[in-house]
Amino acid sequence: MKIWVFGLYGIVSTTAMTGAKAIEKGKAPKTGLVTELPEFSEEINKTIPFKFKFGGHEIRQLDKNGYEATLYHWNLNRHFDREFLDAVKDDLSEIRAKKGTALNCGSAMEDLGEIDYLEKNEKLTLSDIVDAIEKDIKEFADEDTVAVNVASTEPVIKYDKQYHDRLNDFEKLIKENKKELITASSLYAYVALKNGIPYINFTPSSGASLPALKELAEKNKVPHAGNDGKTGETLAKTTIVPMFKYRNLKVLGWMGYNILGDLDGVVLNHADNKESKIISKDGVLEKILGYSPFTITEINYFPSLQDNKTAFDFIHYEGFMGRKMKFYFIWDGIDAILAAPLVIDLARFILYAKKKGESGVVKELAFFFKSPMDTDVYNTHEQYQLLVEWFNRLKEK
Amino acid sequence: MKIWVFGLYGIVSTTAMTGAKAIEKGKAPKTGLVTELPEFSEEINKTIPFKFKFGGHEIRQLDKNGYEATLYHWNLNRHFDREFLDAVKDDLSEIRAKKGTALNCGSAMEDLGEIDYLEKNEKLTLSDIVDAIEKDIKEFADEDTVAVNVASTEPVIKYDKQYHDRLNDFEKLIKENKKELITASSLYAYVALKNGIPYINFTPSSGASLPALKELAEKNKVPHAGNDGKTGETLAKTTIVPMFKYRNLKVLGWMGYNILGDLDGVVLNHADNKESKIISKDGVLEKILGYSPFTITEINYFPSLQDNKTAFDFIHYEGFMGRKMKFYFIWDGIDAILAAPLVIDLARFILYAKKKGESGVVKELAFFFKSPMDTDVYNTHEQYQLLVEWFNRLKEK
Amino acid sequence: MKIWVFGLYGIVSTTAMTGAKAIEKGKAPKTGLVTELPEFSEEINKTIPFKFKFGGHEIRQLDKNGYEATLYHWNLNRHFDREFLDAVKDDLSEIRAKKGTALNCGSAMEDLGEIDYLEKNEKLTLSDIVDAIEKDIKEFADEDTVAVNVASTEPVIKYDKQYHDRLNDFEKLIKENKKELITASSLYAYVALKNGIPYINFTPSSGASLPALKELAEKNKVPHAGNDGKTGETLAKTTIVPMFKYRNLKVLGWMGYNILGDLDGVVLNHADNKESKIISKDGVLEKILGYSPFTITEINYFPSLQDNKTAFDFIHYEGFMGRKMKFYFIWDGIDAILAAPLVIDLARFILYAKKKGESGVVKELAFFFKSPMDTDVYNTHEQYQLLVEWFNRLKEK
Amino acid sequence: MKIWVFGLYGIVSTTAMTGAKAIEKGKAPKTGLVTELPEFSEEINKTIPFKFKFGGHEIRQLDKNGYEATLYHWNLNRHFDREFLDAVKDDLSEIRAKKGTALNCGSAMEDLGEIDYLEKNEKLTLSDIVDAIEKDIKEFADEDTVAVNVASTEPVIKYDKQYHDRLNDFEKLIKENKKELITASSLYAYVALKNGIPYINFTPSSGASLPALKELAEKNKVPHAGNDGKTGETLAKTTIVPMFKYRNLKVLGWMGYNILGDLDGVVLNHADNKESKIISKDGVLEKILGYSPFTITEINYFPSLQDNKTAFDFIHYEGFMGRKMKFYFIWDGIDAILAAPLVIDLARFILYAKKKGESGVVKELAFFFKSPMDTDVYNTHEQYQLLVEWFNRLKEK
Repeated sequence: MKIWVFGLYGIVSTTAMTGAKAIEKGKAPKTGLVTELPEFSEEINKTIPFKFKFGGHEIRQLDKNGYEATLYHWNLNRHFDREFLDAVKDDLSEIRAKKGTALNCGSAMEDLGEIDYLEKNEKLTLSDIVDAIEKDIKEFADEDTVAVNVASTEPVIKYDKQYHDRLNDFEKLIKENKKELITASSLYAYVALKNGIPYINFTPSSGASLPALKELAEKNKVPHAGNDGKTGETLAKTTIVPMFKYRNLKVLGWMGYNILGDLDGVVLNHADNKESKIISKDGVLEKILGYSPFTITEINYFPSLQDNKTAFDFIHYEGFMGRKMKFYFIWDGIDAILAAPLVIDLARFILYAKKKGESGVVKELAFFFKSPMDTDVYNTHEQYQLLVEWFNRLKEK
Repeated sequence: MKIWVFGLYGIVSTTAMTGAKAIEKGKAPKTGLVTELPEFSEEINKTIPFKFKFGGHEIRQLDKNGYEATLYHWNLNRHFDREFLDAVKDDLSEIRAKKGTALNCGSAMEDLGEIDYLEKNEKLTLSDIVDAIEKDIKEFADEDTVAVNVASTEPVIKYDKQYHDRLNDFEKLIKENKKELITASSLYAYVALKNGIPYINFTPSSGASLPALKELAEKNKVPHAGNDGKTGETLAKTTIVPMFKYRNLKVLGWMGYNILGDLDGVVLNHADNKESKIISKDGVLEKILGYSPFTITEINYFPSLQDNKTAFDFIHYEGFMGRKMKFYFIWDGIDAILAAPLVIDLARFILYAKKKGESGVVKELAFFFKSPMDTDVYNTHEQYQLLVEWFNRLKEK
Repeated sequence: MKIWVFGLYGIVSTTAMTGAKAIEKGKAPKTGLVTELPEFSEEINKTIPFKFKFGGHEIRQLDKNGYEATLYHWNLNRHFDREFLDAVKDDLSEIRAKKGTALNCGSAMEDLGEIDYLEKNEKLTLSDIVDAIEKDIKEFADEDTVAVNVASTEPVIKYDKQYHDRLNDFEKLIKENKKELITASSLYAYVALKNGIPYINFTPSSGASLPALKELAEKNKVPHAGNDGKTGETLAKTTIVPMFKYRNLKVLGWMGYNILGDLDGVVLNHADNKESKIISKDGVLEKILGYSPFTITEINYFPSLQDNKTAFDFIHYEGFMGRKMKFYFIWDGIDAILAAPLVIDLARFILYAKKKGESGVVKELAFFFKSPMDTDVYNTHEQYQLLVEWFNRLKEK
Repeated sequence: MKIWVFGLYGIVSTTAMTGAKAIEKGKAPKTGLVTELPEFSEEINKTIPFKFKFGGHEIRQLDKNGYEATLYHWNLNRHFDREFLDAVKDDLSEIRAKKGTALNCGSAMEDLGEIDYLEKNEKLTLSDIVDAIEKDIKEFADEDTVAVNVASTEPVIKYDKQYHDRLNDFEKLIKENKKELITASSLYAYVALKNGIPYINFTPSSGASLPALKELAEKNKVPHAGNDGKTGETLAKTTIVPMFKYRNLKVLGWMGYNILGDLDGVVLNHADNKESKIISKDGVLEKILGYSPFTITEINYFPSLQDNKTAFDFIHYEGFMGRKMKFYFIWDGIDAILAAPLVIDLARFILYAKKKGESGVVKELAFFFKSPMDTDVYNTHEQYQLLVEWFNRLKEK
């Protein structure tokens, strides 16, 4: 299958490409891949063989090829054994990102070093940008192609009922060149869905969440899913909090501190880009517990950690006769290592969904997201069960 | 309903009694009670009103009444607000334990201060002991009575096919007065089941696990459940380990250190009594993961903590491309506060089972146990779901 | 000896009074008292017997006596065994706070419930307020009296060279009634030093730090010390960071999250009151290490914890060949229990200093403070050594 | 200078060699080297330039050269950046270990794979072994040579007054070929001291601790120091415990769990080899606190960690009015990375001592050891101060 990545040269994308190709060559284990669990493995490999071709849009490092860009991240992070990179050097070297868009991606972009993007050419209208993106994707895509957004988190854009609610109005927005009303991720999602390409939003950016784009997906019968890959502290949180609920232990407060040092951290340190990240963390506890305990959730930039994400959570809870007790956990993970296999899993699952005739929001993929679309199921265990049941249903088709 | 407790004056039992009566009087919140969750509350309260009468066997503090014994534990542990104890002083003062048995309860018993038990009178045969226990229980019990074992962990007794496998042989064992082949918990279980009283084994001791006693339960159509209340580190472990499984993250090693300072700790520090505790922890990971990672599980006595149980767990796991990562958690809980509400929950659920005609091992109560009987479901979430489904099934009856 | 406390009915003060009187009566152990270590005990008890009389200013709970105010805190926090409070009920009941000042104490004061203070009477000038405070203190004080500030943290007041730099100008400020240029803590310090009463600033507020007040202390030959009692995370930090320095391990980053739920937390949650707390934490690492690693230091309000202060620190450091490693600690303490004995220690040490003829800033008391005055010694170990040497020097006098 | 290493190809030794040579070439930073702190750097570099030549004895991997042996450890542990190893390949390739002795080194040696040692030739007497060792060392050594023991921990050998107490008797032991009464480390120490070569015992093995060998050092005017490099949990413990002491906070209990997965872990998992490690941990708290709190100290083998040593410590302590509080820390370090620079530091310091005419036990090097010889100073801070003062004294000479 083919995967078109928005944010192709980022650390998540380059890690996914290295791992996918290394596994393909039998050089790396399949650890971390949900699709390779016994529940899915046979059927998924029969339908979608483990063989990938990558392309995508980027706004940085456009002078580099996929190998050089991966090496750049590896030198900073040493996040996997060098052997894997060496083994796939030729495959990655063939990959070359196309120039993308950074429309309304926030002040943080300026801190990421030299960047280039379509709208730097101020003469380009929204229609021109859409056309340019579409041309790149069409050249790459075949029947078995999906698109995944792993670009940096965008600032939240104000919802505008006039243009965001219905497909007609959204296309008017493009025609009228209302650049201030749309972000890069939604433009990308628009092009993908317009061309019948299943779309995954792995970030908290708006992507395909606008009602107008959901309408487009329904109309074109394209499946899509999001938002925001659940890879670290939220994964642990949504796994653990049900324990308190099942036992009728009252959560008095939950404090979660996240620190990380990669570009994601740089971006999140910008107030405007941070907002959408915070929102996607909000409400998780309430959704599972049915009430809102006092919470602190912070994400801080901590440069020396690079891509090593550390989270510290403290849970204060009340038991029998109102007695207060404590629970702490420390999550010490490598963000890209946790995220990358999910990109591959989601690409395969959404393509599988397409092959089985699914369209619109695939809410049964909630298991992979911090802010799953169109569902209130946030409990990791229930999400996993839904995923298995959904997969089994499709298999029967 | 009435609850007959083996180990009536222990900290778990006295905490359960204080809480139950304080809640009955509207003085304490219902936090920690599973039966008071929306899934069960209405039906359970309709069938089994929140109103309890307690009695039981004991081998220590036989000169004290229930209030004095509770005060003894409270002074050492301050494990709940004194107000609750004051509010139920009269109720607890009326409770008086009967002298029980400590048969083959291990060397640790000697460290627990002055103790007294039936077989101190060496003339008493097993039949005499059984008769004495039976007489006490019969005087107390009515139709709505259950028995719960919360006495200290016994050493593991060697399984003897000749006497333990069939009910006939077991009763021969009693008649032949083979004292060395039977422990207190199984004698208690025998009397309860013989008299049609549902039985809960909240400890890792053998209790009703012997095939002969399971046969008795089937024969008399009595429901029972066990073993070993899941209150702390194992609860957290069986909640968290599924996360690694669902995500195909390979657990390389799991280290779990438990320290506690109460009588349970004293008892467990004795090699012979420790054995059964260790065994009930074993296998949990394998049951959930399907493979056996390297594990260290220790329980150590740490006197200054009293009943404050602290566990530290470290999980080493492997993700994408074999990269190793880490997860730590600290459980800082009060053992009796976590255990006591489960005693009340189990008493109500097992009585409910009886009222609905269930008999034999109720494996759907696995949610409450470290070593659930007759089931391989160790994942807390699956256990909870089974519990809800079972309850709904009975409700329909 | 006698101790006049600014913030008499706060939790630190009431805990100190309860403990001091309980120890006096032989009901409580002397744990936590530095003055009772072998290095100091004999000499200090010979010079300043363990016998205390308390009085002070307050702006809340003025209708209560010392016992009632202590009970209020105890009911919320259960921070010590009730027996101690019962044992000193009569002593505390005799204590009655005088109405104090809350001048420029910030917006947080409004959240602390009903308060009353001298300047509520808007006719009162600064001179009137000073006179009122002075009258209260003079009625109480004898030769062996010291004053301690444990009132809530004030907002930082802008340094005004014209009025804060020299004693003459400061007294002009009072005469000219420049209310906007002075906070309560400095007014209190002024009155204490003016009357020859040694003064301890246990808070990060300005207190006696203004050059004008230091001049007054020198002039009147009164010893004083501050600022900001070092009780929790900073104590651990200044103990541990020297280890990295001695071993030439480079600290790459230090993240320190503090959460607490008492009034101090409420106050610190107000941006204006928080500022002085943050500043007194700043620079600690640089002072010890000689360079400034990346740091995050946060103090958050977490209501359910009450006075139970929890801190989580993560240290990222670099060793041989640049290899990065990690160190974590969790501080789970009771703020008032940690602070209260230091109030007693400081009162005794500063009185001892006076008896031995010391005056001005006693920088050798740095051991007790987060932001010690007039010294760069922040390493806890060096501070302790300085304290012992200083005490031995005075003893020889 | 030259360093002769007993255990030349172990992970500590190979890491020290790689780092030393990489620093020499300006390829690696000097982080982690105490001798490169401003307090020592100028004088030590003037006297003992940063330029090293390595040789030593080994019982494993004798078919490999220094580079190959280092690569073996690197492949398992990835404990430093590969670039450093590549930079010093030629230097390490020139190094070749001599066959050493494993006399009474315990059952664990058998688990370490193929080993070879002098006494495999059963005809060799102790005198023959001593001669062989001596020949190797003499060929290597010059005036500026020291010897360091970093071989695996040996079982404790029973102290035998008849042979271990006086030099004469010790030499008789050799002559009489009493192989069962002596371990490898003491034979090595004997040869070093006999030849005037300063000796460092970086392990808990007996080394030069026998009175007979101390006598030899005095007689030959050779300085030596030990025992057991203080690199991890004990370093943190001896840094932190003084905080409790200074503040008169009573330590009620201290639990320390250490896990590690390298050869050291394999060796320590053997009961006989473990004993000497446990003993060197014992008593640390009592030495600093003056009393013995309840302690648990465990070292467990945890294979997946390799050389990544993780320690979890829990401290339960009592404050004002007897209130109990908690402190936790987690040490997540790389053992060899922490130990290796100390080997270089100790080699330089002991050579400096020799140059300045010091002889016998240099107890001022206590800072580097878990069980410092001939001193009761265990507090890391006091040890550091002693080190600085001692160095300054020698500098004046």
